[in-house]
Amino acid sequence: MYQPQPGDPLAALDTPAMIVDVQLMEENIARLMARFQGTSVRVRPHLKTAKSPELAHRLLAAGASGCCVAKVSEAEVMAQAGVEDLLITSEIVGHPKVTRLVNLLQQHPHIKAVVDSQTGAQALNTALEEANLHLNVLIELNVGQNRCGVAPGEDTLALAQQMQSMSHLHLIGVQGYEGHLQHIHDPLERAQRCRQAMHLLTTTAAQLRTAGFPIEIVTTGGTGTAEICTQCEGVTEVQPGSFLFMDTDYRNALGPVYANALTILSTVISLPVPNRAIIDAGFKSLSTDSGMPEPQGLPGFHYQPAGDEHGILTWDNQTSTTQLTIGDRIALYPSHIDTTINLHDTYYAYRNGLLEAIWPVAARGKVQ
Amino acid sequence: MYQPQPGDPLAALDTPAMIVDVQLMEENIARLMARFQGTSVRVRPHLKTAKSPELAHRLLAAGASGCCVAKVSEAEVMAQAGVEDLLITSEIVGHPKVTRLVNLLQQHPHIKAVVDSQTGAQALNTALEEANLHLNVLIELNVGQNRCGVAPGEDTLALAQQMQSMSHLHLIGVQGYEGHLQHIHDPLERAQRCRQAMHLLTTTAAQLRTAGFPIEIVTTGGTGTAEICTQCEGVTEVQPGSFLFMDTDYRNALGPVYANALTILSTVISLPVPNRAIIDAGFKSLSTDSGMPEPQGLPGFHYQPAGDEHGILTWDNQTSTTQLTIGDRIALYPSHIDTTINLHDTYYAYRNGLLEAIWPVAARGKVQ
Repeated sequence: MYQPQPGDPLAALDTPAMIVDVQLMEENIARLMARFQGTSVRVRPHLKTAKSPELAHRLLAAGASGCCVAKVSEAEVMAQAGVEDLLITSEIVGHPKVTRLVNLLQQHPHIKAVVDSQTGAQALNTALEEANLHLNVLIELNVGQNRCGVAPGEDTLALAQQMQSMSHLHLIGVQGYEGHLQHIHDPLERAQRCRQAMHLLTTTAAQLRTAGFPIEIVTTGGTGTAEICTQCEGVTEVQPGSFLFMDTDYRNALGPVYANALTILSTVISLPVPNRAIIDAGFKSLSTDSGMPEPQGLPGFHYQPAGDEHGILTWDNQTSTTQLTIGDRIALYPSHIDTTINLHDTYYAYRNGLLEAIWPVAARGKVQ
Repeated sequence: MYQPQPGDPLAALDTPAMIVDVQLMEENIARLMARFQGTSVRVRPHLKTAKSPELAHRLLAAGASGCCVAKVSEAEVMAQAGVEDLLITSEIVGHPKVTRLVNLLQQHPHIKAVVDSQTGAQALNTALEEANLHLNVLIELNVGQNRCGVAPGEDTLALAQQMQSMSHLHLIGVQGYEGHLQHIHDPLERAQRCRQAMHLLTTTAAQLRTAGFPIEIVTTGGTGTAEICTQCEGVTEVQPGSFLFMDTDYRNALGPVYANALTILSTVISLPVPNRAIIDAGFKSLSTDSGMPEPQGLPGFHYQPAGDEHGILTWDNQTSTTQLTIGDRIALYPSHIDTTINLHDTYYAYRNGLLEAIWPVAARGKVQ
């Protein structure tokens, strides 16, 4: 049976395989945590990127004050593995999902959730009342992404007031995610627009406090904006996730602030025509929603998918003198780390060319 | 614990959920099999689409003469579940993968594989010789896709001759996949170009036979071309997979020859601004490599992903009078069925609105 073990060389891995340079990952964690040390802003990393309890525990050990997950089913995996302080960052709607949350709360009372509508809040409250449970919630604000969230200002205040009659929901904060700003290349524009979004979030938090609501948490930010958010008065915590491994999309936007620590290892399986090599990694191994993955250490080489299980490498003879042969191993940097990790069941973590640990992607596919 | 059961209504499912209309799926199977009944061409469905042993057994019961898989790890899942006559349609390259194949052959001797290079064939033969095992192989030909495959004609003949000295490989056929023709919209152009590709494949098979090689299997075709291939003298089997469920990409190319039997069920979780609804299905629930999924039964509505876990529905007020509210359930037709199924762990199969069966996507993520 195929079962790689710590101590094995990378050459022992079948491909495609998702491999992590542990040292680079550790440096990314240390670099991020150092940036927030000495500030009053807490780091609550978003586990929708890593999808792994082992990595959640590493982040907590490095100073994270809790974690975010996107969905109830992700929270189930993480809570089961002992990650108790969880914020579920997507609205929980529909009877089956509300029931799952209530069942989870029975054992894990420190889970928090977000709401952005009276309908959604009321359904949660009714289910909690029946179960005799209480839930700390944050109102999600639309700070410009036009995805989820109630409008800042009056609409948020109105929702908070409607929630006063919901005895089993306790409003403790606000969330606003400026996802549309994460990948702006110009750092000045990114900072300016981020500050505008933070202004909407923090002034609404202040309005809520003035109206008597105990807003303790003002949570926001991703890998592209977390440091900018921290400089905005009133922000209490940030939610970066991708910094752990990075991807080409973030690297192109941010520069080398964090290292690209994860690649997909593939094998050249065919050389059908000149200047073209076929590798064993296609749509099912590398996501392409944010552009094309990049071959590592092969300047002048380009990747494109060729179906579910195949990828095509092409190159320019004038810029590249590398000759590929069947059996060569090629590592590729993902363009979008979250959706690429979601394709794989296992992290193969290595140091100095040897496998150091094997982590299951335990929350892979937990979309509910 | 969340555990839907047969007999539950669809409303009991948490979302996003991958749901299958069993009756439409059964009709697709019957329709395909009827088209090949009475011909000498066998149907060897490609399981890279369905990824499920339960569905493999249904296809075999309906008349399939064996199955295809793309990778050794898929073959492991299917062989373990009793699907013995398997053709692995991708070249097997690299020591770890060759070792996995040899281990699998110990218990499952009816597995067949493809080769397209002397290097690849030689590595297989060496490993088989050490294990004292034999393997039936097909040479893969490049019939125009420029993905894998040796050139038809002389190059194929040369590889076959090189393989004569490889005592543990037995050449029994040729494979050629015209993947680049599957989605041509004009049926006349698709048929004409497919016949040209089949000519390359069947004439090379004839050349091999003339040279003394016992070519029994000439395997080819997908959902878009299988019927055309069948009409080409010399083709012995076809490999369709997507016909089982279809997707919008195939439906747009082929018309309603098979029914769209699979959708992703989602929930409206937010209504942040006018003419925009947010559903709980993003990149992690619906693939977009072949275009945008389509909301079912909602003319004038359009889907676009809004990150890993969110999707945006927009609509034209002039063509649509439907009003969406938070909690509404929306089903979407995938644009690419293989990559969408690969995102999900479970099929929820229903008939007349009630769950009939729950099938694990046991070969999901088996990319190695």
